[in-house]
Amino acid sequence: MEVLHLYGSEEQKKQWLEPLLRAEIRSCFCMTEPDVASSDATNMECTLQRDKDHYIINGKKWWSSGAGNPMCKIAVVMCRSKTVNQNDRHGQHSMILVPMDTPGVKKIRPLTVFGQDDASHGGHFEVHFDNVRVPASNILLGEGRGFEIAQGRLGPGRLHHCMRAVGASEYALELLCKRAASRQTFGKKLYQHEVVAHWIAECRIAIEQTRLLALHAAHTLDTKGNKAARKQIGMIKVVAGRMASKVVDCAIQVHGGAGVSDDFPLAHMYAYARTLRLADGPDEVHLSSIAQMELRDQLRRMSAKL
Amino acid sequence: MEVLHLYGSEEQKKQWLEPLLRAEIRSCFCMTEPDVASSDATNMECTLQRDKDHYIINGKKWWSSGAGNPMCKIAVVMCRSKTVNQNDRHGQHSMILVPMDTPGVKKIRPLTVFGQDDASHGGHFEVHFDNVRVPASNILLGEGRGFEIAQGRLGPGRLHHCMRAVGASEYALELLCKRAASRQTFGKKLYQHEVVAHWIAECRIAIEQTRLLALHAAHTLDTKGNKAARKQIGMIKVVAGRMASKVVDCAIQVHGGAGVSDDFPLAHMYAYARTLRLADGPDEVHLSSIAQMELRDQLRRMSAKL
Amino acid sequence: MEVLHLYGSEEQKKQWLEPLLRAEIRSCFCMTEPDVASSDATNMECTLQRDKDHYIINGKKWWSSGAGNPMCKIAVVMCRSKTVNQNDRHGQHSMILVPMDTPGVKKIRPLTVFGQDDASHGGHFEVHFDNVRVPASNILLGEGRGFEIAQGRLGPGRLHHCMRAVGASEYALELLCKRAASRQTFGKKLYQHEVVAHWIAECRIAIEQTRLLALHAAHTLDTKGNKAARKQIGMIKVVAGRMASKVVDCAIQVHGGAGVSDDFPLAHMYAYARTLRLADGPDEVHLSSIAQMELRDQLRRMSAKL
Amino acid sequence: MEVLHLYGSEEQKKQWLEPLLRAEIRSCFCMTEPDVASSDATNMECTLQRDKDHYIINGKKWWSSGAGNPMCKIAVVMCRSKTVNQNDRHGQHSMILVPMDTPGVKKIRPLTVFGQDDASHGGHFEVHFDNVRVPASNILLGEGRGFEIAQGRLGPGRLHHCMRAVGASEYALELLCKRAASRQTFGKKLYQHEVVAHWIAECRIAIEQTRLLALHAAHTLDTKGNKAARKQIGMIKVVAGRMASKVVDCAIQVHGGAGVSDDFPLAHMYAYARTLRLADGPDEVHLSSIAQMELRDQLRRMSAKL
Repeated sequence: MEVLHLYGSEEQKKQWLEPLLRAEIRSCFCMTEPDVASSDATNMECTLQRDKDHYIINGKKWWSSGAGNPMCKIAVVMCRSKTVNQNDRHGQHSMILVPMDTPGVKKIRPLTVFGQDDASHGGHFEVHFDNVRVPASNILLGEGRGFEIAQGRLGPGRLHHCMRAVGASEYALELLCKRAASRQTFGKKLYQHEVVAHWIAECRIAIEQTRLLALHAAHTLDTKGNKAARKQIGMIKVVAGRMASKVVDCAIQVHGGAGVSDDFPLAHMYAYARTLRLADGPDEVHLSSIAQMELRDQLRRMSAKL
Repeated sequence: MEVLHLYGSEEQKKQWLEPLLRAEIRSCFCMTEPDVASSDATNMECTLQRDKDHYIINGKKWWSSGAGNPMCKIAVVMCRSKTVNQNDRHGQHSMILVPMDTPGVKKIRPLTVFGQDDASHGGHFEVHFDNVRVPASNILLGEGRGFEIAQGRLGPGRLHHCMRAVGASEYALELLCKRAASRQTFGKKLYQHEVVAHWIAECRIAIEQTRLLALHAAHTLDTKGNKAARKQIGMIKVVAGRMASKVVDCAIQVHGGAGVSDDFPLAHMYAYARTLRLADGPDEVHLSSIAQMELRDQLRRMSAKL
Repeated sequence: MEVLHLYGSEEQKKQWLEPLLRAEIRSCFCMTEPDVASSDATNMECTLQRDKDHYIINGKKWWSSGAGNPMCKIAVVMCRSKTVNQNDRHGQHSMILVPMDTPGVKKIRPLTVFGQDDASHGGHFEVHFDNVRVPASNILLGEGRGFEIAQGRLGPGRLHHCMRAVGASEYALELLCKRAASRQTFGKKLYQHEVVAHWIAECRIAIEQTRLLALHAAHTLDTKGNKAARKQIGMIKVVAGRMASKVVDCAIQVHGGAGVSDDFPLAHMYAYARTLRLADGPDEVHLSSIAQMELRDQLRRMSAKL
Repeated sequence: MEVLHLYGSEEQKKQWLEPLLRAEIRSCFCMTEPDVASSDATNMECTLQRDKDHYIINGKKWWSSGAGNPMCKIAVVMCRSKTVNQNDRHGQHSMILVPMDTPGVKKIRPLTVFGQDDASHGGHFEVHFDNVRVPASNILLGEGRGFEIAQGRLGPGRLHHCMRAVGASEYALELLCKRAASRQTFGKKLYQHEVVAHWIAECRIAIEQTRLLALHAAHTLDTKGNKAARKQIGMIKVVAGRMASKVVDCAIQVHGGAGVSDDFPLAHMYAYARTLRLADGPDEVHLSSIAQMELRDQLRRMSAKL
């Protein structure tokens, strides 16, 4: 929805954004591909070919969240143009609107995350595009401007995930404390075991540090915009998944066997937290760009001192 | 099977061990309980009551591996006697043989580990015992000797799990290397990224250190017996699950989305590795007893110096 | 100075605080003792005995910062009263003003921190008090109120140390980046090695998270006071020393041999950062009290939900 | 001494090795340079120039251990030839014997490690070579064969350091246990605090894993030689310094202020352990080459399966 809101034409908004906002339909986003390392987005191979006033799309996507929901009527698909800007690694990709009922769109299979299929949200699907033909007017913003859109959309999207991770961690810590107060070993409540007590403290510290970083990134995003917030969004992206994985892991340990079972939401939360570390660009890609920005900032500061 | 082999009477062996060895039937082990923190085994509450020449068993167990297998005909159940050694925390528990078809034995439900049910091995079940009556001769070794049996059986059992964890980690590292050699980002194979290369090195180091510790523990177990190997088995127990979790986690990260899906065995391996850190006594219980043994050993060494 | 400012009588302030503010003299603080684990402050044994209108002080202190400075004229000494509140662990201690030239005050020796003596600031001294007699009016706030003063003073004092640690870490990261940009191995600048780049990113992340936590704690301290800020001050205390140790350690590694030598301030900064983890209460004591506060907060929240 | 033993000519051995073995003189090794990142040994710049039947040496070295010892009479100096193998990065360096009293050899200054100068062993020195002229027969093995010698010498040398690190860690753990048994906080001996107990266990585990890895590497070195042991020596090199740093750090924390002072050998041991992580090639260089060897081994194994 954000993509349409920010980059859709009036006509595109009327046709798709309005029913989305009325919750009559849902959308999905087709970016990651099974056959290439999509952490480098320039690797994406799903092709876009102009054919008079249409585009033809061919390729494979997966981890398209919600594609399995019967209400999902429209996909935003990232493609590589065969003709545009062939010398510019970041100018060959486009985003295009593809109605899910277009001939050639095939929902291949739902994927699982640590064995869980998340069916209630429509799952994560592998979707193939087989000579899919859509009107040229379905292109978003213009051919070759896919990365521009991705930059504009992914920042806030990442931050939402991080905030959810903070919320999930708060809940995990609450469960941890409850369990530690209700079970007893070797003559003491679990929370009276110093090691468990220190976990509680470490989890609280980690959550606080992450919350503050998320708020700071959100504040920068709101007041200075997407570009100024890039470094901070990169930082919170790395921190949130890692922190949530750690907090949920502690909570699991305190719950014993119950923690990995379906009796508690912890195993499910772990899958979410773990996935954060590789979704929306794996942490390693973000660390590399944070480093680059830091070096640039240090250089500026040194020059300023001279 | 090991329990029967080591502690069964001739009659018990004849009736149960022989068909087990002929693979005509299978067994399960009912120890952990849902309602108490079973990491302190003295917490277990499933009761054993003598009624003339029978025992009556009442209680709830879970994580009974393989109980769901149709070939599973016999359970070894850990119970607390209501009459024996009431002043000795480690002398009140007993192990008893319970045929699965005894009235009152109820397979309540299969449990999942990170959403996976491991049905192929018969799953992990919650099993309730409701006024289950078995002949007194089904007791193993004698009433109140349950901990003695547990000590004798758990050491080697833990080591087997650790060896499996080493094997699983080797496989995960192999998958990691293959993937790192087949995918490319930012103009380089994944393994040419220094960070990924260092993961490979760290995984190899961690596996080697764990393998050597496991071999050392096994050697001590074989040559000096269960008791002499206690500290080493505690150490390998802590190390193996932790190491395997780390190695598998690295392999998942290198695989991206594919790593958490069912397309690779990594998510499943993670569930196994993570479970190791809380099964057979959570790591924290082992760390506490390793510390106690270390302090005792240090004391001895200091005395020897005087 | 803060202690005198907050808890000194008018007369005490006139005699000692005013020359301190004019920088004519300096003070030192004598709390930690060599013969007991001072992380539990109730362990302190230096005695205070009333003798008519005087007090007599006997005991050993160390890590008295600045005691070796020739301008250091006055010590604040934490003592245990032999007669007051013998049943209250936190009501037996007192703070008292002891002029450094009182007979019986003996500067035993300067201490080193990782081999460095910090002589420029007057060093850290071991100071013995041997039948030292001072007027009863030298007591601060009243006999038995030492912990009250400690609570009031240590919070802000800890925060100052944490802020210094953030500043030191910023400097260490600057040095790291400079070095990484000026040296070359295997055909690349050091910062072009992905592992070094990721260190830079991790250091920046750690510093940001700590800075935000410190600012938040300072804000709470300023707006809601010492008591409301206790949990946050505990958290920043734990985080700051740990973070600074990590950042400085990375910077050392990038500098190679030069990093541990006196050619760069890094070895000195490491000593400071490492000391933070055990000074003003070791991290472990703080983790335990954070856990207690967290459990109390969770309990309140649960009750509020009902 | 090892270098002379393995690579010295008969004459060289007679002149230098024999008095070394009789402990009449000592030697030092001049490799690392202050002006280049010496972790990449090909960076070394100290020049070697043939002048008829002499060589002339010009350059700066530092961290020459023992150079300050008055008994130190001979240096082994790594130099870069200006004429030999200019196209082979690993064929330009040579090792040459330089008597310490040769004109132009200047002991510039002792270096400190975390403020400690290790004077008792002759310290670590910065040594400059200013038009130093020695007979051509002083060359070891032949011009351009410096790396060959380094490979032959550094493996066993690294292992010795690792074994020392294991020994130091054992001593640190012993001190930790003693202190934990002699001090008390909050009504318990320190070792009765669960967190401290777990440190004890973790230290024992880390030491055992490192000892086994060191023994395994030594066994491979003894039975299969330097080359076959390369991967294992790389692994133990990385593990030993890291482990010793961790164990000594725990011991310091248990000792409180005393731990960082000179009252205990811990601060000194920390300096040694920390230095191990960057001496003899920083850990990162070793991790990179372990990764390369692992990938090669995996490839072999995969080919073997086909």
